Amino acid sequence: MRRYFPILDWGRSYTRDTLISDLIAALIVTIMLIPQSLAYALLAGLPPEIGLYASIAPLVIYAVFGTSRALAVGPVAVVSLMTAASVGQLAQHGTPEYLGAAIAMAFLSGLMLLAMGVLRLGFIANFLSHPVISGFITASGLLIAAGQVPHLLGIRAEGHTLIETLGAIVGALGTLNPVTMALALPTLAFLFWSRSRLKPFLKARGLADLPANIIARAAPVVAVAATTLATWGLDLAGQGVSIVGDVPKGLPMPTLPPFDLTLWAQIAVPALLISIVGYVETVSVASTLAAKRRQRIDPDQELIALGASNIGAAVSGGFPVTGGFARSVVNFDAGAETPAAGAYTAIGMALATVFLTPLLFFLPKATLAATIIVAVLSLVDLGALKRTWTYDRADFAAMAVTILVTLGIGVEAGITAGVLLSLALHLYRTSRPHVAIVGQVPGTEHFRNVDRHEVVTAPDVVSIRVDESLYFPNARFLEDTVNGCVAKTPALRHVVLMFPAVNAVDASALETLEAITTRLAEAGITLHLSEVKGPVMDRLARSHFLDHLTGQVFLTHCDAMRALAPDLTASTLGATRRDTHRNGKPDRGLDAAAGL
Amino acid sequence: MRRYFPILDWGRSYTRDTLISDLIAALIVTIMLIPQSLAYALLAGLPPEIGLYASIAPLVIYAVFGTSRALAVGPVAVVSLMTAASVGQLAQHGTPEYLGAAIAMAFLSGLMLLAMGVLRLGFIANFLSHPVISGFITASGLLIAAGQVPHLLGIRAEGHTLIETLGAIVGALGTLNPVTMALALPTLAFLFWSRSRLKPFLKARGLADLPANIIARAAPVVAVAATTLATWGLDLAGQGVSIVGDVPKGLPMPTLPPFDLTLWAQIAVPALLISIVGYVETVSVASTLAAKRRQRIDPDQELIALGASNIGAAVSGGFPVTGGFARSVVNFDAGAETPAAGAYTAIGMALATVFLTPLLFFLPKATLAATIIVAVLSLVDLGALKRTWTYDRADFAAMAVTILVTLGIGVEAGITAGVLLSLALHLYRTSRPHVAIVGQVPGTEHFRNVDRHEVVTAPDVVSIRVDESLYFPNARFLEDTVNGCVAKTPALRHVVLMFPAVNAVDASALETLEAITTRLAEAGITLHLSEVKGPVMDRLARSHFLDHLTGQVFLTHCDAMRALAPDLTASTLGATRRDTHRNGKPDRGLDAAAGL
Repeated sequence: MRRYFPILDWGRSYTRDTLISDLIAALIVTIMLIPQSLAYALLAGLPPEIGLYASIAPLVIYAVFGTSRALAVGPVAVVSLMTAASVGQLAQHGTPEYLGAAIAMAFLSGLMLLAMGVLRLGFIANFLSHPVISGFITASGLLIAAGQVPHLLGIRAEGHTLIETLGAIVGALGTLNPVTMALALPTLAFLFWSRSRLKPFLKARGLADLPANIIARAAPVVAVAATTLATWGLDLAGQGVSIVGDVPKGLPMPTLPPFDLTLWAQIAVPALLISIVGYVETVSVASTLAAKRRQRIDPDQELIALGASNIGAAVSGGFPVTGGFARSVVNFDAGAETPAAGAYTAIGMALATVFLTPLLFFLPKATLAATIIVAVLSLVDLGALKRTWTYDRADFAAMAVTILVTLGIGVEAGITAGVLLSLALHLYRTSRPHVAIVGQVPGTEHFRNVDRHEVVTAPDVVSIRVDESLYFPNARFLEDTVNGCVAKTPALRHVVLMFPAVNAVDASALETLEAITTRLAEAGITLHLSEVKGPVMDRLARSHFLDHLTGQVFLTHCDAMRALAPDLTASTLGATRRDTHRNGKPDRGLDAAAGL
Repeated sequence: MRRYFPILDWGRSYTRDTLISDLIAALIVTIMLIPQSLAYALLAGLPPEIGLYASIAPLVIYAVFGTSRALAVGPVAVVSLMTAASVGQLAQHGTPEYLGAAIAMAFLSGLMLLAMGVLRLGFIANFLSHPVISGFITASGLLIAAGQVPHLLGIRAEGHTLIETLGAIVGALGTLNPVTMALALPTLAFLFWSRSRLKPFLKARGLADLPANIIARAAPVVAVAATTLATWGLDLAGQGVSIVGDVPKGLPMPTLPPFDLTLWAQIAVPALLISIVGYVETVSVASTLAAKRRQRIDPDQELIALGASNIGAAVSGGFPVTGGFARSVVNFDAGAETPAAGAYTAIGMALATVFLTPLLFFLPKATLAATIIVAVLSLVDLGALKRTWTYDRADFAAMAVTILVTLGIGVEAGITAGVLLSLALHLYRTSRPHVAIVGQVPGTEHFRNVDRHEVVTAPDVVSIRVDESLYFPNARFLEDTVNGCVAKTPALRHVVLMFPAVNAVDASALETLEAITTRLAEAGITLHLSEVKGPVMDRLARSHFLDHLTGQVFLTHCDAMRALAPDLTASTLGATRRDTHRNGKPDRGLDAAAGL
């Protein structure tokens, strides 16, 4: 029970102090979330009230199922962009079909997350490497910011890619609306300034931390109120300023997503991508915050919590939600101690939905665009490209491809290309296990890489030390290595594979070992193993491999050499050397050998 | 030059003896290839002469570019089935569009293989694990055999899946053609018998090895000739026996594949799958045969050779080809010494195309169906399911899913599901690196797993030994492990990560290490590293990680403990124990520890 309902855990020890801390945090997050919810709904191509709806039920549900004490769930920029990108291919903006597809997306994504949680498939998030997710968020931030620029300028310009959007903006520059710009640009500047400078400014003027914090977080609300008032008072809508218009008042009605299998099939892949991207963001925020207070989150339970939240979003008429980075940090900094803070935030949002919506009629869309731009530009991290280039070229390639494809083709193509490329690069790297040909260090029972150490070998025995577990990505490489040794050593009679670092041998690698045995046997060469670990040996014993093995399994490599090359071991223990290798090539095997 | 044209290598030392060996092998392979080429063309849904065309130019081209001395290239069953499955979705059987799409498939697949070869992407074949390819070939064999049964019974029955096909056969049983069956079933029995028994039978009767071999290989040709003669002589076509009919005489004209981008986009994924499946089959046959004679093949050059062969197939009006298992073994056993044998086979096939095609008019399709069934049933290996189940459940799951999806949905879905599942399982397995918490073996400088050995630890220091390289699939696990230690050890002041087995740290793992450092610092805990290998250290030094590292990097773990827990090391070297751990839980860490 407690595994699936963490509320049973923290709910028992809920005190008055905790309540006060949670209420204060909820107040601050609510203030921050009102303009953001409206803005992200617009970003997703949906009516503004949908953003409010998506910030009520999911928060209550997360409070019941979530294991993070500080995560704040709701609409976020990247997921909203992904929703817009995929739903936009299926239906026209502003139609009931568009809204229905967005709701279905939340529902399907919720089901997928829930299923992954129950099946404990949280490891699927490992498919997304850091460079890919970081590149994807940077590119999404740029795309989102560029898409909002027309709202600031009072022009109409749309595009699916960054180039298209920028081109459309340049093309529409002739239709600039100076009134919109006069309203939007100061708002943008104020938001940028208040984001980082307002709190220190207030504290420097003697305000205490808590009120300074609340006022700083309220800056976007102040911007919303001021620009709405200005638009109403000066009748700016009549001068070409786009306004939000009618927002339905009241709480959302329970709805069911459209059960249309064709639609579900069309949104299945985007829903999966949204689920995984949202989950990765959630887990990374949640575990960062948990670690700060020496708490833990349960990644599989987070899947369940996020899945249930998205289903909650869908049945209350909302769109896909996830744990937001900025608002979770704000929640944490404001002192939220339990997920109950999220439930109180939901109450705040519900009150806003009931009482504030009539006041939003004159809210300029430019203000929301400015809110979005300020939020997403903090996600853009182009410096990561340079850091990754310095550190690892393969990771840089994955990041660069993710960014370029996201900007140039689209979000789904971008994340897919990044994942596939990083998997391919990973397979490439792991397809070459460390393998070293070893010889005996004279006078000792130690064996070291022949390319790096002065060692002796017998002309008719090759000892190959395998430094990694054998799986299908690297099975072929072992085969090639053995074939290479056989082809270049005509006198060869015995091959010994040393397995001190082999923790597992999968079925592909087993077949490879069988193939190697058979081929060596046909060429008159015997295959032996040495230093095989217990669990690997147990598993090999369950197959027919040991029956077909032409040679023996030696406990230590020294035993193997004593049996196969008795002259050699006798002579080197007597310190006579023959067949000595030495060269100074740099070789990754050195450190592996040193580690033994 | 020699890398790309292996013919320059073996061509220099070509002697009269080699010529004779190659000619004999070519004769035997030609005899085998004539009925197979016709049959596989029908299997691919193409006119029979296309099979002959695909067995001329590709063989000559492979002789120039191939590195295997014995590989016989041409149409094969599985690739023909895959071609039929994907082309069948785009065009009607028997239309010029169908033929055009098959030719385009050969061309595009050739281009892909060529590109992979030039870019040295042979490792992509590692995506296909043994259980997946073995399951796929078994399922394909069953699908192909079921699809040929109607030809034996003289009925019309088609289906996309095994169930559909069997259902259609049962439904059409009322229209059985007894004449066709009377012709087909004895042919099938004869082919099965001659495949394994004819050669021993002839040798037991005193025939020498070579003529016995040639006659045994000629059995399908005998079946073709006998059934054709019977059909002609007894006018069986008038009694409902399907015949091949008019086959155009003469060599193929050079053609260009249709350059239609829509078509190419539609066949891109199937072409990639065909390329990879064909390549994996080629490389496994070629390397098996090469090893028997202590030769080597170059997997990247094989991509180029196979790519060029497929382009050759396309421009000579053929369909996708690859290295066939059975015919390569026959070629090898018959004594082929160089790829020239393939070129001589091509001459044989060209002569057949010019002179034999008129004789094929009365050839019953049932004979070709019997040829196919005998060939593909040898590919079916249901025993592999049981062997894999005993050995490894994850590999069994990948194999079973591949078989079920291939049989139940289709070949493309089957191979894709198998690849994705095996990759997911691989990531799952590699997402949990070996990590052990270690303590000091009293009185020594050795450190061992606390769960498996009697060791001492300090209450404020946790030592975590990481037994694998750190990559994005396992970075999160390390994070979880460290978080877990922190959450359950309130007195913790130092965490030491021991890296003796870490050969690489990718950018994702680096970010994880940075995140761990920051979080530990916020909780007042210092992070240290010990026993970091040279190349890993060099790379870490290129990032900012070492600047942010709150602790130190120790050369040995003993140095770390001397610095961080001086009391402990002093006391244990004096053999006083405190805080001793011991329990008998089975733990994968044991062997890792024993390996150190």
